[in-house]
Amino acid sequence: MPTSDTVSLNRLAAPLVENLVADAASLRLGVQRLDNGTRLIDAGIAAPGGIEAGRRIAEICLGGLGRVRLQPAGGHPDWPWELNVATAQPVLACLGSQYAGWSLAEGEGKGAFFALGSGPGRALAGKEELYSELGYRDTAERACLVLETAKTPPVGLLDRVARQCGVAADRLTIILTPTTSLAGGVQVVARVLEVAMHKAHFLGFPLQHIVDGMATAPVCPPTPDFLAAMGRSNDAILFGGRVHLFVRGEEAAAEDLARRLPSSASAAYGAPFADVFKAAGYDFYKIDPLLFAPAKVAVTCLDSGRTFQAGRLDPDLLERSFA
Amino acid sequence: MPTSDTVSLNRLAAPLVENLVADAASLRLGVQRLDNGTRLIDAGIAAPGGIEAGRRIAEICLGGLGRVRLQPAGGHPDWPWELNVATAQPVLACLGSQYAGWSLAEGEGKGAFFALGSGPGRALAGKEELYSELGYRDTAERACLVLETAKTPPVGLLDRVARQCGVAADRLTIILTPTTSLAGGVQVVARVLEVAMHKAHFLGFPLQHIVDGMATAPVCPPTPDFLAAMGRSNDAILFGGRVHLFVRGEEAAAEDLARRLPSSASAAYGAPFADVFKAAGYDFYKIDPLLFAPAKVAVTCLDSGRTFQAGRLDPDLLERSFA
Amino acid sequence: MPTSDTVSLNRLAAPLVENLVADAASLRLGVQRLDNGTRLIDAGIAAPGGIEAGRRIAEICLGGLGRVRLQPAGGHPDWPWELNVATAQPVLACLGSQYAGWSLAEGEGKGAFFALGSGPGRALAGKEELYSELGYRDTAERACLVLETAKTPPVGLLDRVARQCGVAADRLTIILTPTTSLAGGVQVVARVLEVAMHKAHFLGFPLQHIVDGMATAPVCPPTPDFLAAMGRSNDAILFGGRVHLFVRGEEAAAEDLARRLPSSASAAYGAPFADVFKAAGYDFYKIDPLLFAPAKVAVTCLDSGRTFQAGRLDPDLLERSFA
Repeated sequence: MPTSDTVSLNRLAAPLVENLVADAASLRLGVQRLDNGTRLIDAGIAAPGGIEAGRRIAEICLGGLGRVRLQPAGGHPDWPWELNVATAQPVLACLGSQYAGWSLAEGEGKGAFFALGSGPGRALAGKEELYSELGYRDTAERACLVLETAKTPPVGLLDRVARQCGVAADRLTIILTPTTSLAGGVQVVARVLEVAMHKAHFLGFPLQHIVDGMATAPVCPPTPDFLAAMGRSNDAILFGGRVHLFVRGEEAAAEDLARRLPSSASAAYGAPFADVFKAAGYDFYKIDPLLFAPAKVAVTCLDSGRTFQAGRLDPDLLERSFA
Repeated sequence: MPTSDTVSLNRLAAPLVENLVADAASLRLGVQRLDNGTRLIDAGIAAPGGIEAGRRIAEICLGGLGRVRLQPAGGHPDWPWELNVATAQPVLACLGSQYAGWSLAEGEGKGAFFALGSGPGRALAGKEELYSELGYRDTAERACLVLETAKTPPVGLLDRVARQCGVAADRLTIILTPTTSLAGGVQVVARVLEVAMHKAHFLGFPLQHIVDGMATAPVCPPTPDFLAAMGRSNDAILFGGRVHLFVRGEEAAAEDLARRLPSSASAAYGAPFADVFKAAGYDFYKIDPLLFAPAKVAVTCLDSGRTFQAGRLDPDLLERSFA
Repeated sequence: MPTSDTVSLNRLAAPLVENLVADAASLRLGVQRLDNGTRLIDAGIAAPGGIEAGRRIAEICLGGLGRVRLQPAGGHPDWPWELNVATAQPVLACLGSQYAGWSLAEGEGKGAFFALGSGPGRALAGKEELYSELGYRDTAERACLVLETAKTPPVGLLDRVARQCGVAADRLTIILTPTTSLAGGVQVVARVLEVAMHKAHFLGFPLQHIVDGMATAPVCPPTPDFLAAMGRSNDAILFGGRVHLFVRGEEAAAEDLARRLPSSASAAYGAPFADVFKAAGYDFYKIDPLLFAPAKVAVTCLDSGRTFQAGRLDPDLLERSFA
């Protein structure tokens, strides 16, 4: 039987990256080469980008292993358009690629740059402990990372990133998606399945027991206010996200996962995320990590055939956040 | 930053046209070459065509810049299948290509031919004043137009069309979709986003402020009665259409657009379109132009982050029209 | 006008089969060549497979003439994900290819092998009387069949299948989808349109009058219990399936078809399928064939323009089956 070891996230993503560049004009993206040859794709800083750009960036971020579709999905009458995510390999696509787990920092003080890197390039560098748990490491000639930022990363940092990915600097593509942009909001909301996978992992559920999954969450309206924009993209998942996971193992473990997985299982649940963030003194690490989860959850235990439903859509809180 | 100037609607649409021809047998389309070499695609006159043909013709009509998907979308329990339209460039795709704005007429009296041309070929000819407003003009070696007609256009007219598009007559493809056919109904309903763009333009909203958008409307059941068929394809949008636009500019302008955009904002609203048309003496130009719009509207002001909701789905009128 | 005669189901499906093999690692499929060169694709026996594998197998099973999409569709709050099927040629795609109509048996007693073959290969062999009714017979150099089984078919049987398809044994691909697997459930639920076509045929409705159609049904949760798994995949269609057919002919015939088509039109309706099957002594042929149908039906008469709605979604019975 072929295993995920034979899948190269970066090789699967590479044609999607080239198509994004080829369609840059119609997607209203900016594309430039830095002095070191690294390719920057601007999806919302000087270039406007848009929803379709965000959708395609989300598929790149899933390492070419997942599909993201924009469609009316009926969860909320006033916010019908949702991003529907499906992947044949949720663990590898979401945690091995899409998760924003690579801290990229350079400089200090006012001129400092910091962003969290997501996307298939992470699996080349393997800087995160997660990769030993996943038992996965990629090798490829080209690398791509997505950064949720409104600033251009310094060339020195990109040289280092390329080196850590084991690729030449001119084989590295960096996609920049500001939080306040249309593409930025879309690519965050498209993390609805990843957020569920990450919380399952945090709860100690064995990743190798997660066989399949799909998720959906409403497109959040962008806003130029950074905190509000960040809040909305989280709220789309916390109050409007739905996920269905298919897992192996004991039925009790599946039931426990379902019960603990929804956002409403957190004591911090009950207000738009921007308010929660403010109350935590603008410090992510003071927020209950259990809050980061979809609103409504189904977990099917493949070994028993039972499905456990938990959580609920929360149209009132969604409306408070989006309106 | 690349601009829409660098996008060629006709070059984007050309491979979609070739695929349509290649799949003519499975899509049950008729394909023939006229004496002057112009290619005619019959999507519902002698050939039956069908829904998938209509869907693909709609994507051609959007100049290859948009996606049209057929899916159950939950707006109406008895009419769940909707056509979901998304495009990275709503102004260019919908107004620059999909809008039926080119009057094609030849002859007089009984043998006269008249149809409104839509699709990317319009942007080659640039016969409409709209193109100076859009600041767009296409150049390409191949052209394609979609005509909502049940008659074959005269060769002389097509020669003229080819000349005005700046292409050889044998590089011109004309797709014929009768109003009463499955494909014809689908390609009209798929104009739900275009109808919203056109009304926004009519209302004086600056087109360059419309950044992104998506829309959906239910598939209308065809009927051999021409007036009823035309009525239903309009009613799908007027009573079942939903649109979300993302605009720049003043918040008050976005709010005003949302308030005035829905079909129900017109004094002519309240009856199936076929009845309205009859009451207007079968004269389109006597109908309030404000009627032509989707039922339910959301407009997000990107500069303030606020979203304005207006209008409503009207299942009773939809049912009266479709049943 | 091109006719369905010019469409080769096997040639349309062949690239989808090659893509499935190329993506075997990411789809977690097993691929092997038997001694006679026949290619076996394991989608849930030793290899895990998954939902996306099942979706793509369903598209192969439709002979490359249909699209199957996984999406939240709003029919049931707890079971939002549905498989949405559309095809440009419902008769040929569903009955000429997807229907499991080819009995494949070898051996006797304990070691006997039996499965029903579905997919485009059927149209090469033409073993079923249905093909003379359809007036269709395919010729191609490659053949593919889908078997709902958890056992590897004997080589002798596959040699015979290849011979009957008129292809070399090493040009035959067999896809194995156990009933209890994720892919197996998906490819059965994706038969929701085929089930409607088959019942229409059983009711004597003229197949040549069925012009177009689309259908959707919820993804059923798999279970290791074979009877329960078989029951759920049927119940997804019986209690959660929706279909819209577009037909030619007399209005009365369309109305009669709509009235008789839904599962609830059968006297056997009213309990999960596994219970019905048990009550019938585990004998399919003792179950009312009228039971096998989607829950909710619309039939549009193209010759009159009227649409007839019948049946209803049955969330309670769906929940009893799926929970």
